[in-house]
Amino acid sequence: MKKDSKFAVIGGGSWATAITKMLCENVQTVNWYMRNQDAIEHIQKEEHNPNYLSSVEFDVTQLNLTNDINIAVAEADYIVFAIPSAFLKTELDQLTVSLKNKLIFSAIKGIVPESSLIVGEHFHKTYDIPFEQIGVITGPCHAEEVALERLSYLTIACSNEDNAKFLADHLSNHYIKCKTSEDIIGTEYAAMLKNIYAIAAGIAHGLGYGDNFQSVLMSNAIREMKRFIKKTYKMKRNINDSAYLGDLLVTGYSVFSRNRMFGNMIGKGYTVKSAQMEMSMIAEGYYATKSAYHINKDKGKKKAKTPIINAVYEVLYEQKNPKKVFLKLTDKLD
Amino acid sequence: MKKDSKFAVIGGGSWATAITKMLCENVQTVNWYMRNQDAIEHIQKEEHNPNYLSSVEFDVTQLNLTNDINIAVAEADYIVFAIPSAFLKTELDQLTVSLKNKLIFSAIKGIVPESSLIVGEHFHKTYDIPFEQIGVITGPCHAEEVALERLSYLTIACSNEDNAKFLADHLSNHYIKCKTSEDIIGTEYAAMLKNIYAIAAGIAHGLGYGDNFQSVLMSNAIREMKRFIKKTYKMKRNINDSAYLGDLLVTGYSVFSRNRMFGNMIGKGYTVKSAQMEMSMIAEGYYATKSAYHINKDKGKKKAKTPIINAVYEVLYEQKNPKKVFLKLTDKLD
Repeated sequence: MKKDSKFAVIGGGSWATAITKMLCENVQTVNWYMRNQDAIEHIQKEEHNPNYLSSVEFDVTQLNLTNDINIAVAEADYIVFAIPSAFLKTELDQLTVSLKNKLIFSAIKGIVPESSLIVGEHFHKTYDIPFEQIGVITGPCHAEEVALERLSYLTIACSNEDNAKFLADHLSNHYIKCKTSEDIIGTEYAAMLKNIYAIAAGIAHGLGYGDNFQSVLMSNAIREMKRFIKKTYKMKRNINDSAYLGDLLVTGYSVFSRNRMFGNMIGKGYTVKSAQMEMSMIAEGYYATKSAYHINKDKGKKKAKTPIINAVYEVLYEQKNPKKVFLKLTDKLD
Repeated sequence: MKKDSKFAVIGGGSWATAITKMLCENVQTVNWYMRNQDAIEHIQKEEHNPNYLSSVEFDVTQLNLTNDINIAVAEADYIVFAIPSAFLKTELDQLTVSLKNKLIFSAIKGIVPESSLIVGEHFHKTYDIPFEQIGVITGPCHAEEVALERLSYLTIACSNEDNAKFLADHLSNHYIKCKTSEDIIGTEYAAMLKNIYAIAAGIAHGLGYGDNFQSVLMSNAIREMKRFIKKTYKMKRNINDSAYLGDLLVTGYSVFSRNRMFGNMIGKGYTVKSAQMEMSMIAEGYYATKSAYHINKDKGKKKAKTPIINAVYEVLYEQKNPKKVFLKLTDKLD
């Protein structure tokens, strides 16, 4: 570690790589933590991540690479977490450095399996970090297009507007536009729920449903997302803003989405287990489905009407026949 | 003409062919008018339309084919118009038979160029047909998927709910689900505006914008559509219903959409004229852009904020540089 940076990025995947690239456009140095020491050495020598977005060339003098999360966090004031939600607890358990007085930004889409909380709530409840120090980075944004410097829009949500604006300013450049929002809970749930709807889109496609049905599914999905989020955290929001509808569309219509691919395999007849074995990366929506289903169910009489989430849950967790489940679902959509 | 039918379909294109197919699932005979006598003879002999949806096989004993619009209309009580809006006046000018006391359903997406009215309003104002006798058939529905009997959802809008329900019952089958609506004006404008947004999506794609931007564009488009329709005809509607958002998505994300293709050519550097010459079919959105722009502009201070429509108008009608126009547009989206 040669230089001090106020920013740390936690994660070595494609989204972490994209965010590091964005930060490097605006700040002198970034502390970049990833577990994989081989990847670190590759980046130091070859100036690109060997495993993700390998076309992105870094000026390595800007990077403080480390496989020790404590080193990356210690010197930084602003920490961006960009790892799969399933690994968050394992990583955080290694922390000996305090997160107090730091600004935490989550670029994680999903729920922390151990706490069944969205990431912002997890930091708040588990580490006692006040909400105004927790922010959320959401798309619609495929990391692959950031690598290509194709114009993308991000939403930075934080209950403290200055903090949201601070990060927005540090991520913006000629190919990234940022807007800010106060809806940390809603944007996080949207980012999580969209993965379930992408699985549903994949299942439908695998079963032979066409583009007409896909558009009806997405039209129902955004209405369902609105109901779900409203029951969870009521505030004034326009569900058609980019952070909600845009994020749903970029994933639900993407043929590269892991979640959609996973669903597609299920629709084509793979078992859940065999579909998971075929995929080298975890489909976040698999865990999100279980969490969202139970979060909603636990509301009892106050639960939202969520026919799509329920259908995906029945297929993934109750081993019901996708063809039959989706045939029943078609009667609940309009 | 061997048999009497209460239904007439006006048009020989793909959407007319799809609707005739749907009606034939539920009624004994359909009067089917098209201009092209060769096509009629082909259908009579080969049992399929030679030019559109040629995979759809008809039982020709169900069809009263004619190239005389007056014969088709005379015996029918329910007339479905499914021709490009640019041809509607020419066809209607041939009518000697009265349309009074008939139920008119429009499956036309666009504006009548001669009157600058949407089709329902055109029938109402020009032929003095009361609104309760005028209905609108909207998707999201690619005719090609009807041919394949892939599940599709239609919305039938009419201020008279019984009339809407009547047609819904006659179009529904195992691959078509219909819902009804009272919003004849809003659904028609949605069907028209979506073609403009599909051109915008095409231009953006042609200019090299990616999927991230496309999702932001669609997210902004549905908000713009809501504002436009609200200023034109205010009533309680959920803009995320299939007839609005679904219809926007099925067109805006379709690589087969004529409007998107047309926009794509413009984005790639074709002039409007050369793009039109390359395409054998007219892109409805080309006319819709001019109409929508002026309808909105004529509202003066009460006009809606429509940056996307304005951008497409500038490119198509003011010969402005698409790259520059869209670069400016990106600052107005969020």
